[in-house]
Amino acid sequence: MAATTTKHSLLAGVDIGGTKIHTLIVDDQYRILASARKKTKSEGGFRAVMERVVETIDEAAKIAGIPLTALAAIGVGAPSPIREDGVAVHAPNMGWKEVPLVKTLEHLLRVPVVAENDCNVGTLGEFHLGAGKGARSLIGLFVGTGLGGGIVWNGEMIRGENRMAAEVGHMIVQVGGRRCGCGHQGCLEAYVSKTGMGRKFAYEIIHQGRSSILTKLTPNDYSNIKSSILLEAYQKKDPLVVETLHEAMTYLGIGIANLITLLGPERIVLGGGVLEAFGKTFLPLIRKAAEEATHPPASFSDTKILLASLGDDAVALGAAVYARESLAQKK
Amino acid sequence: MAATTTKHSLLAGVDIGGTKIHTLIVDDQYRILASARKKTKSEGGFRAVMERVVETIDEAAKIAGIPLTALAAIGVGAPSPIREDGVAVHAPNMGWKEVPLVKTLEHLLRVPVVAENDCNVGTLGEFHLGAGKGARSLIGLFVGTGLGGGIVWNGEMIRGENRMAAEVGHMIVQVGGRRCGCGHQGCLEAYVSKTGMGRKFAYEIIHQGRSSILTKLTPNDYSNIKSSILLEAYQKKDPLVVETLHEAMTYLGIGIANLITLLGPERIVLGGGVLEAFGKTFLPLIRKAAEEATHPPASFSDTKILLASLGDDAVALGAAVYARESLAQKK
Repeated sequence: MAATTTKHSLLAGVDIGGTKIHTLIVDDQYRILASARKKTKSEGGFRAVMERVVETIDEAAKIAGIPLTALAAIGVGAPSPIREDGVAVHAPNMGWKEVPLVKTLEHLLRVPVVAENDCNVGTLGEFHLGAGKGARSLIGLFVGTGLGGGIVWNGEMIRGENRMAAEVGHMIVQVGGRRCGCGHQGCLEAYVSKTGMGRKFAYEIIHQGRSSILTKLTPNDYSNIKSSILLEAYQKKDPLVVETLHEAMTYLGIGIANLITLLGPERIVLGGGVLEAFGKTFLPLIRKAAEEATHPPASFSDTKILLASLGDDAVALGAAVYARESLAQKK
Repeated sequence: MAATTTKHSLLAGVDIGGTKIHTLIVDDQYRILASARKKTKSEGGFRAVMERVVETIDEAAKIAGIPLTALAAIGVGAPSPIREDGVAVHAPNMGWKEVPLVKTLEHLLRVPVVAENDCNVGTLGEFHLGAGKGARSLIGLFVGTGLGGGIVWNGEMIRGENRMAAEVGHMIVQVGGRRCGCGHQGCLEAYVSKTGMGRKFAYEIIHQGRSSILTKLTPNDYSNIKSSILLEAYQKKDPLVVETLHEAMTYLGIGIANLITLLGPERIVLGGGVLEAFGKTFLPLIRKAAEEATHPPASFSDTKILLASLGDDAVALGAAVYARESLAQKK
């Protein structure tokens, strides 16, 4: 069914994450021709990260057997709001503030580059190629170190006036509640993220003297526990971990309810490391919490709540989709 | 500048509220040619309310000196979600459940009728003709007995999959918090509405024995105090009223922050009886609370927070706009 273009139109999609850079080269049907990964090592500074991005693209191009000039464009997802001029405004995980992401990469690569917030393009990827395929509207929620999100409405990302919107994790659901990394209190992310859960672990273990298997599994730092370790502790029925995860997934359900109450999207897709590890286990609990908090109750059943299906590729694929959309708009 | 159509195209806009029905007849520039009002008297039942709607339209048409057949369409705003088939799904204030609003009025009037949730068309009215004029995106918040809202994005109402979305008042901002009329806990409306404030008044006065001028001004019922009485008590610096209104406006600011964090609209417009009475007084407090809770902080300044400008006419005018848009879509 798909129309094949006479001229082959290749794209690269890059996911710059806190721990790794992940690059894909795709064809005009978004079939993956090659992939390459490197550690981000953000402590080396912005310029070093950019060079490592270039290395992954070079490597992937080599695997695909193409020169960089065969790429029509490169799309980048990064953990920052991205301004219209391609500047990454603020990426605390990376230590970036107002860095010229697009300009730097275009200078190094000599290929058109577009960039967008990672959760926005991750949602766009799921919308076009994953669990959102065929929907008119989709909200993506990605639970990992933080809680990121994206909103796609009638096929378009909602980014707000300053391209900083869809910050789903910083919706306040508990006025005066748990302190969030952003400085506010009661953000959804303060309950539904590894950082948020980590605050509770630290409080309960260190300040309240509560015992937990976490003191053995990850003795020194509760601030960003690996999902695999959380899973191990959960499977061993550690009471603190069970209680904290249940609380987190209940809050996630309430956050989802708010999004249905406000926007009534056709689908909500849940991804990120925590949900890749726990999604199947907790989906019934999440749905129940969402159903109990949605208004009006009758509207709940019109939104499908699904697990993301692109896994680790969502951001890189979505970045490639965004690159193609940007090219199409320029024509 | 405005193009005048050769054929005069008149519309009626009707606002069916809990206490009054308000009808306007407007020309193709939305100039008001006539208006008529009647008490709703919803206790008489759905059919009686429909007949009173017809009476206001007849009366307004008589004032305008036109026959009903001169109306191209009638737009109705009602305090209920309205299904695609014109059924008003659920209007607790009116005692309506699944009533055939559009069908009944078309049968009685023999003119095309469209209907939509009152806060949605109120927002549409402000978007086209009021404080939202010229914006791309607008969220309206109307504080009265309840807290209603509407979202207009790229000129279109966001109504969600089941046309029940934009229920801004039922976004949960305080998990486990104050009970809301909808049955949930911690909805924004439970803090930011006359019903919500009434619960606090009743609790403080009746259960806590706290003294307040309200016991003299409105001795028997705190559940839906007139805005003018609230204003009087506030101007007399009644501590309970001052404290409760400050709390309500702070919560309103936090709700606004959530909407900016999620959607980053160009403008947010505040209307309804409470804000008509207190808007000018509290706008700085509302803005401050919103600014303190928006994420990222830099995105706050890109959304303008304004008072609504159409007052009591917002819903009827918005309903007329909606009627014209519906006609245009049919062509």
